[in-house]
Amino acid sequence: MSADNQPIVVLVEPQMGENIGACARAMLNCGLERMRIVKPRDGWPNPAAVANAAGADKVLDGVVLYDDLREAVADCQAVYVTIAWAQNQIKPVITPRQLANETRVRCAEGQKVAFVFGRERSGLHSDEISLGTAICTVPLNPDFASLNLAQAVLLMAWEWLMANDATPPRVLVTNKTAPATRGMLMNLLDHLNGALIESGFLGLPDKRPTMIRNIRNIFTRLDWTEQEINTLHGMIVKLRGKGRG
Amino acid sequence: MSADNQPIVVLVEPQMGENIGACARAMLNCGLERMRIVKPRDGWPNPAAVANAAGADKVLDGVVLYDDLREAVADCQAVYVTIAWAQNQIKPVITPRQLANETRVRCAEGQKVAFVFGRERSGLHSDEISLGTAICTVPLNPDFASLNLAQAVLLMAWEWLMANDATPPRVLVTNKTAPATRGMLMNLLDHLNGALIESGFLGLPDKRPTMIRNIRNIFTRLDWTEQEINTLHGMIVKLRGKGRG
Repeated sequence: MSADNQPIVVLVEPQMGENIGACARAMLNCGLERMRIVKPRDGWPNPAAVANAAGADKVLDGVVLYDDLREAVADCQAVYVTIAWAQNQIKPVITPRQLANETRVRCAEGQKVAFVFGRERSGLHSDEISLGTAICTVPLNPDFASLNLAQAVLLMAWEWLMANDATPPRVLVTNKTAPATRGMLMNLLDHLNGALIESGFLGLPDKRPTMIRNIRNIFTRLDWTEQEINTLHGMIVKLRGKGRG
Repeated sequence: MSADNQPIVVLVEPQMGENIGACARAMLNCGLERMRIVKPRDGWPNPAAVANAAGADKVLDGVVLYDDLREAVADCQAVYVTIAWAQNQIKPVITPRQLANETRVRCAEGQKVAFVFGRERSGLHSDEISLGTAICTVPLNPDFASLNLAQAVLLMAWEWLMANDATPPRVLVTNKTAPATRGMLMNLLDHLNGALIESGFLGLPDKRPTMIRNIRNIFTRLDWTEQEINTLHGMIVKLRGKGRG
């Protein structure tokens, strides 16, 4: 995805260069590259930001500075202000996941979307909040909700990444072997059951069908690879003392 | 939710106390309280951990130490190992969101679930990975995927929190006033249209229905509060020069 179709992270008067760097790192982890800063306390560029960005120079090199938030978001169609608790303003309050979903749609339409983060200690002023399309609050543990700036940026960037992500939720890694067919598994269980009957484990004929079904349920719960099926065949042969050597 | 129904975060041989503290903070932000540590490099308790936990003492005070991972997860029904890239092992690979969903179900059944995180530099050894029910990898920007320990813990804990969260995705905060009814809004538009006709803005009678519809579409896209409707009535009166004072 091109950086043109991404939300822009806007930091308002961040104090610590370290935090700006950690924000850049968290952004790039999630593929976000565009950062704007309103009046960074220690000027710009900031060596402490570079040191803490862990290589996310691409983000820092592209930073654009502004004198106030109104100017920083003037070209954006939607502005989301992230604050710890909803203030006394008439405004929609959304979750980070909802923010990500709305942003995905807007960015696909070519809109510019700003995610605005306030000062480390004092957050955003009321007039800044009133510029927002909506307020995004992170519904954390109410007894322990203090998140540092970079972690707040990480959660928003992560949700945006996930809203655009096509990674399958669960896959079995099989490397060079392949998933086994049900026929291969049934052959293995025939082999096992034969060996168990031969060895006397399945000695009571009237209990046999139930036990065989129970054993089948152990093995069918797994996704097997062809190699693992072969390994089990070999184990059975050896356990019965029939292998070579 | 009681801490008994939560996943347990297991850190394997963490080096920096600062990281352990930051993990505890991220956990408690998302309501997780149970941490186990396999052989912390600098011993335990660790003052640097306390200093960086920003008050998450509850988590640090409850830490249990182990000699190896096998022992640390012996009482767990499911063990998820988080690693940066899938290793050469036959194992399901799941996303953090899938991890959260599976964990929610398991915890509701009373199972103990471990989220295992490896060493800062070298991660988990192959034998440790093989103890896992599944591997969880975070599908970050492939060109910039390095996440620090506490941020990895934060993302897993956050997904767990979200899988259990009932916060409405979008609500309008109205404070002391209430959402306006459609009738109140229509009365406002009647007032506005009357003033516009009177002032000559809606001068061409054959274009009037279309313009009135367009104006209505501006105002009906918003969720109004009763107070805002009253404010607008007052604005129209004043703009027409009919107010007192």
